[in-house]
Amino acid sequence: MTDKVLDDISHRRYNPLNGSWLLVSPHRTKRPWQGQQEAPALNKLPEYDPQCYLCPGNKRAQGDSNPHYKNTFAFVNDYSAVKEEQQEYHPQKDAAGDGDDDIASLLLQAQPATGRCYVLTFSAKHDTTLADMSATEIIPVIETWTRIYASHLSASHPLRDAAARSLSEIPPNPDGEVEPAKKQQLRYMQIFENKGAAMGCSNPHPHCQIWTTSTLPEEPGKELAQMTKYHREHKGRHLLEDYVKVEMAKGERVVWQNDGFLVVCPWWAIWPFEVLVIAKRHVRALVELTSEERLQFAEAVQEVTRRYDNLFETNFPYSSGIHQAPLDCTEEEAETSWFHMHFYPPLLRSATVRKFLVGYELMAEPQRDITPEQAAARLRDCGGELYRKSLQ
Amino acid sequence: MTDKVLDDISHRRYNPLNGSWLLVSPHRTKRPWQGQQEAPALNKLPEYDPQCYLCPGNKRAQGDSNPHYKNTFAFVNDYSAVKEEQQEYHPQKDAAGDGDDDIASLLLQAQPATGRCYVLTFSAKHDTTLADMSATEIIPVIETWTRIYASHLSASHPLRDAAARSLSEIPPNPDGEVEPAKKQQLRYMQIFENKGAAMGCSNPHPHCQIWTTSTLPEEPGKELAQMTKYHREHKGRHLLEDYVKVEMAKGERVVWQNDGFLVVCPWWAIWPFEVLVIAKRHVRALVELTSEERLQFAEAVQEVTRRYDNLFETNFPYSSGIHQAPLDCTEEEAETSWFHMHFYPPLLRSATVRKFLVGYELMAEPQRDITPEQAAARLRDCGGELYRKSLQ
Ligand SMILES: O=P(O)(O)O[C@H]1O[C@H](CO)[C@@H](O)[C@H](O)[C@H]1O
Ligand SMILES: O=P(O)(O)O[C@H]1O[C@H](CO)[C@@H](O)[C@H](O)[C@H]1O
Repeated sequence: MTDKVLDDISHRRYNPLNGSWLLVSPHRTKRPWQGQQEAPALNKLPEYDPQCYLCPGNKRAQGDSNPHYKNTFAFVNDYSAVKEEQQEYHPQKDAAGDGDDDIASLLLQAQPATGRCYVLTFSAKHDTTLADMSATEIIPVIETWTRIYASHLSASHPLRDAAARSLSEIPPNPDGEVEPAKKQQLRYMQIFENKGAAMGCSNPHPHCQIWTTSTLPEEPGKELAQMTKYHREHKGRHLLEDYVKVEMAKGERVVWQNDGFLVVCPWWAIWPFEVLVIAKRHVRALVELTSEERLQFAEAVQEVTRRYDNLFETNFPYSSGIHQAPLDCTEEEAETSWFHMHFYPPLLRSATVRKFLVGYELMAEPQRDITPEQAAARLRDCGGELYRKSLQ
Repeated sequence: MTDKVLDDISHRRYNPLNGSWLLVSPHRTKRPWQGQQEAPALNKLPEYDPQCYLCPGNKRAQGDSNPHYKNTFAFVNDYSAVKEEQQEYHPQKDAAGDGDDDIASLLLQAQPATGRCYVLTFSAKHDTTLADMSATEIIPVIETWTRIYASHLSASHPLRDAAARSLSEIPPNPDGEVEPAKKQQLRYMQIFENKGAAMGCSNPHPHCQIWTTSTLPEEPGKELAQMTKYHREHKGRHLLEDYVKVEMAKGERVVWQNDGFLVVCPWWAIWPFEVLVIAKRHVRALVELTSEERLQFAEAVQEVTRRYDNLFETNFPYSSGIHQAPLDCTEEEAETSWFHMHFYPPLLRSATVRKFLVGYELMAEPQRDITPEQAAARLRDCGGELYRKSLQ
């Protein structure tokens, strides 16, 4: 049990996974709210929308036509944040090589960023979400993620055997295949979903994005450094291995679990109903999941998203993302990676009142209003059938 | 000049002030936007609103009445995130002291957080903003900030003489005085403003917040560490001193300047029209500003907020915050502090379309769509009279 006193007092908690602190102020939810109310999400969507650039058979912004796909469909983002081909960039040097230029190159540092960005649909149906889909229907999504990850691994990757096994075990879905960048081995693959207008999603058709980049981004970089440090300092034990053990023993932050995955509101959660899905055994990346574990992972994703929708009886917005071994990495980086998925949902009090991470949070330190233990208790309690099933 | 190629290619830039990287994708703004549109901010506010808990003479949520104040009015937040008095907290130890408990105390770390949170109005008028106020009208705000900061400094603070000078030089405004926490010397004071519903502001009456805490928060902590490191490694030169020099020489990211302050879209800006206001000489904290510099600082704040409103002809939302020397600090921490103010505004394309820092940004790395040089050029060009003056 957590000290009960933490339910009542302001305190800071430490996030060992990324090495930073946050402020918890449990009594703050008592304050009245006169600020922005989110527009309730549209819920009368058609199953097929002729205007949607993701629906099967439709034309996209730059003229390509979508195939008549069944569930997943992957393509290179028409407006990619990084591209494979671009002009070369070598930071300018002042010919004079004087002191001022040294300061400038120190304070104005840039490096080129290349890569490929994909969009991947979860379903052919415009009006569905992961919460509406069964675990079995989510499996093709996980299989497509796995094949895409596997096909992007470096030739010398410590997980290349697992990748080869996945590629032979999971039958290819022709609409869900993408070709990795040709000229260059990329460093990291970030799979993420923005769901709901409140999280900047510009199309409700269920989909995620996959950005692969030539560099290791900040967040997975910080986590990998922390996990590697822990592994070195604790006789080869893993940070998330120990964390799973602690949370299973304590119980109060556990939302749900099966044999393969633990779903918790982490001790260090920033977002009100933030959730972490953690593999219970040492899975380094998607390619190490067995077919049984892919089902268990699908169940975990289903449980999280359905409980979210049930909590305030709404189409719950969130951003989610998978962290796993880099596409190109050292033996140690692969060894200290531990497969997990973050969910960051903004809603706080109801379907229309969200938590804003603004002034103090941006300038000083993240701050949350309810404890993760309170959030977990509420998510544990709303595991029933998806609320809108009975409304139909 | 920046290499022109950076206008066209994806690249990462380094933020030496907090030690992290971000992704810049200049071509991304070409993508169509079908997502959330911000509601245009209410603009027909009354000068006095009987329902507003900040207007002079009104009653607040917990029953206190506001004085009939003239410009600034400060009070302890009725729903403070941290408080002076709370139950004590000592992390629980398992009596058995076995190995599992060691892991738990390592992975579930908490520390108590105490302090005081204040609210400070900028004006008695409900319907004004910093952009509507003249520099002369902003001076009382800066004076109140200065007196509040000065009265919270530790007795042994390296800037105590400057603080004493400020307190004797700036006449007290009885409505703008607050008493520091009595039992404890606090460590840091974060002054910040959330403006506009899009930035979580729950009351349009012009005001900021001041949170003082027993610990040094993450962001100023990171900046202080980076500035201290730079100072040690560069023969006593300061990071922001050198940065001001570089930006004044380059010019392309400069929005505006006077003798005391430089206003730039920093090289490492994350938010589309992010701005940094930097003292040109080594000012460590508000108490070191001369009365002439307080006017210069007021002018800078006026220029930034007026240009923001002019850019999309709207009441431009933002979060802003001041970073300066901690309330309680070592000689070296005071010496390496350099007074500056951040502005983080979310709007990207128009009064109703914002940038969302969501999936990739939260899971991987901040990403921006226009370059800081492009943003600075646009802010340089909209310095005329406040657009709504001519509409009245
Ligand atoms: O204190 P306020 O204005 O009610 O609240 C606002 O600012 C706080 C500090 O940045 C945030 O924690 C809240 O989410 C936001 O709505
Ligand atoms: O790519 P989308 O869905 O158009 O855009 C959305 O996700 C991106 C990646 O998190 C963000 O950079 C955008 O701000 C957001 O609106």
